[in-house]
Amino acid sequence: MAAFDSVKALVFDVFGTVVDWREGIAREAAPFLARHGRSDIDPHAFADAWRKRYQPAMEACRSGRRPFTRLDVLHRENLEDLLREYGMDPAGIGEAALDDLNRAWHRLDPWPEAVAGLARLKRRFIIAPLSNGNIALMLNMAKRAGIPWDAILGAEVAQAYKPQPEAYLRTAEVLGIRPAELCLVAAHNGDLRAARQCGLMTAFVTRPTEHGPNQATDLKPEEPWDVVAKDFQDLAGQLGC
Amino acid sequence: MAAFDSVKALVFDVFGTVVDWREGIAREAAPFLARHGRSDIDPHAFADAWRKRYQPAMEACRSGRRPFTRLDVLHRENLEDLLREYGMDPAGIGEAALDDLNRAWHRLDPWPEAVAGLARLKRRFIIAPLSNGNIALMLNMAKRAGIPWDAILGAEVAQAYKPQPEAYLRTAEVLGIRPAELCLVAAHNGDLRAARQCGLMTAFVTRPTEHGPNQATDLKPEEPWDVVAKDFQDLAGQLGC
Repeated sequence: MAAFDSVKALVFDVFGTVVDWREGIAREAAPFLARHGRSDIDPHAFADAWRKRYQPAMEACRSGRRPFTRLDVLHRENLEDLLREYGMDPAGIGEAALDDLNRAWHRLDPWPEAVAGLARLKRRFIIAPLSNGNIALMLNMAKRAGIPWDAILGAEVAQAYKPQPEAYLRTAEVLGIRPAELCLVAAHNGDLRAARQCGLMTAFVTRPTEHGPNQATDLKPEEPWDVVAKDFQDLAGQLGC
Repeated sequence: MAAFDSVKALVFDVFGTVVDWREGIAREAAPFLARHGRSDIDPHAFADAWRKRYQPAMEACRSGRRPFTRLDVLHRENLEDLLREYGMDPAGIGEAALDDLNRAWHRLDPWPEAVAGLARLKRRFIIAPLSNGNIALMLNMAKRAGIPWDAILGAEVAQAYKPQPEAYLRTAEVLGIRPAELCLVAAHNGDLRAARQCGLMTAFVTRPTEHGPNQATDLKPEEPWDVVAKDFQDLAGQLGC
């Protein structure tokens, strides 16, 4: 694909694009809820409710109401708030169990073809996450799942949460390349829109079950992205890797 | 080695410890100097002179006289100063040639056993650079040489140059571990001293020709470091990898 001749690095959204956060969180929430006598709570609903607090928590940092705070901390605060909403007392659950559940985000599984697709893409491009997840989260996830990143980039390195322009622009700067030499790969039209406004190339990959069987959003590209692929193997093929 | 049972990550000094900067810079300086009619300059002396400006340039950032500035920028300023010292005009050489020579730092070769040793160490530990080199420099070097880092950490992520304590302490913090769970691997006693003062574990590896055949410094451990190895294969063996 000629449009990619000058692209030097692919950076990836991770939650939803590389890994299946909903199944991963539900898988670990189920035994946690059972141990605390709350098998009445649906673990997928629990995962959705935890994730729902993600954007508002980052928005506090984006708006400047709060200094940049890494996602592990925001996830933990959101978890405690969520447990209280379900009538569970975090103090009664204890530090070790809370920390362990919070680290379920470090143990999410990639979509089935993702690691093999990334290995192909890595032959031609620098590959790195450009996630709002923090460095330890991304690194532990990659180490466990065998994701072959060349570096761990993203919000913590840029000290800005997507879709703030700084998240994209500082990533290009850190790599020593121009925005046009950097391509964001994401399953979310909004993320790609923000990247394109910063001058990045854009690759849309469909993840039609990120939000479960009844997903209504991001089922297709909403703009003419530079490449549209059904998964990472398809992306590697289209980019000649 | 029981002392390493609780160590989760090994971070590495890079210039001198992982790669042979002196031979790498001399190899690229030789044709550069020849092209500009200065074959009279010994390329190893040129490498030594360029490297000699490294600590003073970082000291400006450490002391607060200057904000944190990534090493690619400092290397470039030092190169231009050095050329002027040799009576060469950087403006006459041109941007492309200067930038290319500056990127010789991105193309340094690892010591012969380093990549294989790192691959063994990676099985048990998180491995990452903790170098004063910036992210793009470390990443491009790793991509070219096949260094299998799990992440690119170091001065640019910590926004502090070794041996400032923040360089070590923020690296542990970013990894989500305690300083005692982090071990610095370095061929330099001074770097290890600073790391130990921050509570890190320490591994000394000898690199007796880093400064050429007449090296007089860092030929042996000056303190009882937690482990002393002759190279990375030896280190992997001692750590049971």
